[in-house]
Amino acid sequence: MRDVSIIGIGQTKVGEHWDKSLRELAFQALEAAMHDAQVERVDALYVGNMLSGELTGQEHLGALVADFAGLRGIEAMKIEAACGSGAAALRVGYIAVAGGLCDIVACIGVEKMTDKQGDIATSSLATAADADYEALHGLSFVGINALLMRRYMHEHGYRKEDFANFAINAHANATRNPYAMFPHPITAQQFAEAKPVADPINLLDSSPIADGAACVILAPTSIAREFTDKPVRVRAITVATDTVAVHDRRDPLYLEGAAISAQKAYAMAGVGPADIDLFELHDAFTIMSALSLEAAGFAQRGKGVALALDNAISLDGHIPITTMGGLKARGHPVGATGMYQIVEVAMQLRGEAGPNQVRNARLGMAQNIGGSGATVITTILEADQ
Amino acid sequence: MRDVSIIGIGQTKVGEHWDKSLRELAFQALEAAMHDAQVERVDALYVGNMLSGELTGQEHLGALVADFAGLRGIEAMKIEAACGSGAAALRVGYIAVAGGLCDIVACIGVEKMTDKQGDIATSSLATAADADYEALHGLSFVGINALLMRRYMHEHGYRKEDFANFAINAHANATRNPYAMFPHPITAQQFAEAKPVADPINLLDSSPIADGAACVILAPTSIAREFTDKPVRVRAITVATDTVAVHDRRDPLYLEGAAISAQKAYAMAGVGPADIDLFELHDAFTIMSALSLEAAGFAQRGKGVALALDNAISLDGHIPITTMGGLKARGHPVGATGMYQIVEVAMQLRGEAGPNQVRNARLGMAQNIGGSGATVITTILEADQ
Repeated sequence: MRDVSIIGIGQTKVGEHWDKSLRELAFQALEAAMHDAQVERVDALYVGNMLSGELTGQEHLGALVADFAGLRGIEAMKIEAACGSGAAALRVGYIAVAGGLCDIVACIGVEKMTDKQGDIATSSLATAADADYEALHGLSFVGINALLMRRYMHEHGYRKEDFANFAINAHANATRNPYAMFPHPITAQQFAEAKPVADPINLLDSSPIADGAACVILAPTSIAREFTDKPVRVRAITVATDTVAVHDRRDPLYLEGAAISAQKAYAMAGVGPADIDLFELHDAFTIMSALSLEAAGFAQRGKGVALALDNAISLDGHIPITTMGGLKARGHPVGATGMYQIVEVAMQLRGEAGPNQVRNARLGMAQNIGGSGATVITTILEADQ
Repeated sequence: MRDVSIIGIGQTKVGEHWDKSLRELAFQALEAAMHDAQVERVDALYVGNMLSGELTGQEHLGALVADFAGLRGIEAMKIEAACGSGAAALRVGYIAVAGGLCDIVACIGVEKMTDKQGDIATSSLATAADADYEALHGLSFVGINALLMRRYMHEHGYRKEDFANFAINAHANATRNPYAMFPHPITAQQFAEAKPVADPINLLDSSPIADGAACVILAPTSIAREFTDKPVRVRAITVATDTVAVHDRRDPLYLEGAAISAQKAYAMAGVGPADIDLFELHDAFTIMSALSLEAAGFAQRGKGVALALDNAISLDGHIPITTMGGLKARGHPVGATGMYQIVEVAMQLRGEAGPNQVRNARLGMAQNIGGSGATVITTILEADQ
């Protein structure tokens, strides 16, 4: 097996791109990443996407994007793992390069969600849950998270307002990210007064439906410096699964898939949570931030929210999270999100995060979650300068 | 890179499975393949599927099937390349085993299409075409193929009835396949009198919408004999793309993606068309059989139909195709089809095709096509006994 590095990154601004089609968004991110890597051709293209069929009437994105990008003929396919699709596509690209089957590979995450009414997006997002045993009973995705949050508050003695800092921190970081959908700060009072979505989740606990695309170019580490003087090594990328339906789990407040995925990643990279300088987690809702921090070993069970209360999650805190705004404020174009996380970690490790730069960032981790923790992909990246 | 072998195969009967859910179909094929390989665990699960989101309100099939099969925790994801999804999933599994990242991998193709009305399936299938430039104008998938067939007849001087033997041969072979959807023979007269679907395509040119699942288990060739005394070696598996929209091609009657994919596969395996003992091609419509035979080098341009007229495609012909019924008569559950082809080639190479056995079959090829030739996966398998 070969070591693999990221030699190029690209992203579009996250938002409501009514003037751009799905293929245009994907191409914009791909073009930026190929330009960054100074490559004119790739051997293969893996496209992470969840909802193109439901929301834009278009499957077959691999061939579609390859052709639109002028790469007709190459290997291409779409990879889907609900909201974990982006990092799942990176995993396939990693396998292809590490195994020696391809040299230069592009991995894209792309999603276009705002062309349809919000209720259609909501019902489409429920396809990430168990169609027969959750969605069929009218349980939406935010509804599942609301049940988890209510139970967490009950078990561990938190109040609703204790979750505020996850959102406040994310928005604060987004103000300095030109690619963020909501680059404005929010206050504790705004959080407390935000409209309820599915009690106890309110609008400011929730990441927004959005359009966007992000892309990374992979190459064997041995040749990475031919393309860039800032390669970022992929020290680990692992996938683990759990039940899709939350009610099938032994303990709904323990993300076992996230824990397995993180443990495998730590073992693969030969590091532990204490070595990680920043953590791009999957804050689709504030409760997911808490559960992800606990499953990945950054907090004891029930103490994830305490990290937010203690402000340990800020850029100069013990474990900085959502350093460019996270799903909450950068935005959550679901199949693209995992790739945005990777691009953002790579920016930190390249020292290109501008005013959001985490000092001396050497090791960064991202955790991309599909469904309510049913597919979890953990990636550990290392600066190589 | 390691050599890779198929150590287990499994399939469900193709048909209208109103009594079985998507996950049950996938599990049935997986269980059969794992039993065949005598394995109780796999390292990863790659699920080829196209339309689960649109037709059953369920994405996230990787985790769903892994959990339902008692494999909770393992790596799992869905792979999509329109009707090429099945073989695309095999490609990802192959990459993982060949590269040394996984040892035992399950690759499933599954589709459930008959729960909805046929017109919904038809519009969903159009997501394999170009949504903005083909489907938007009302051009259905069968419509695209009808245009290709009409043009082919005009260019090469064939009559409609010249295509009959593709369907007659497929149905004849299906009569002896217990997994086939339509195990009954058809006659030239029935073909001539069949109802039109999109002129010149009639009902007996067309493969049926169906439910089904097929699965193979992969392992490194070096340990394959620990599991089976009939391993089948994967000599090549390649993916190539073309434009999604047919009108963007230089020559709509030349499947360039199929040609590139086949040439790459021949090069990878170090063989040529003359070495291939049987060819499971993608006969979604009879015209696709002709175009596939030509692109893969079994016939000169415009001579694919002549192979059918000469009966060179029968079990004892020069190049046997659709030996278990093909898409036409075994059935075409779109995301599963590519895996059915692989299972059928493996059966031939294991000498388990019963009355449909191709004599002295050593090298078999399958070509799985997504869209109208936009994604093409070619696989060459070899008997290893």
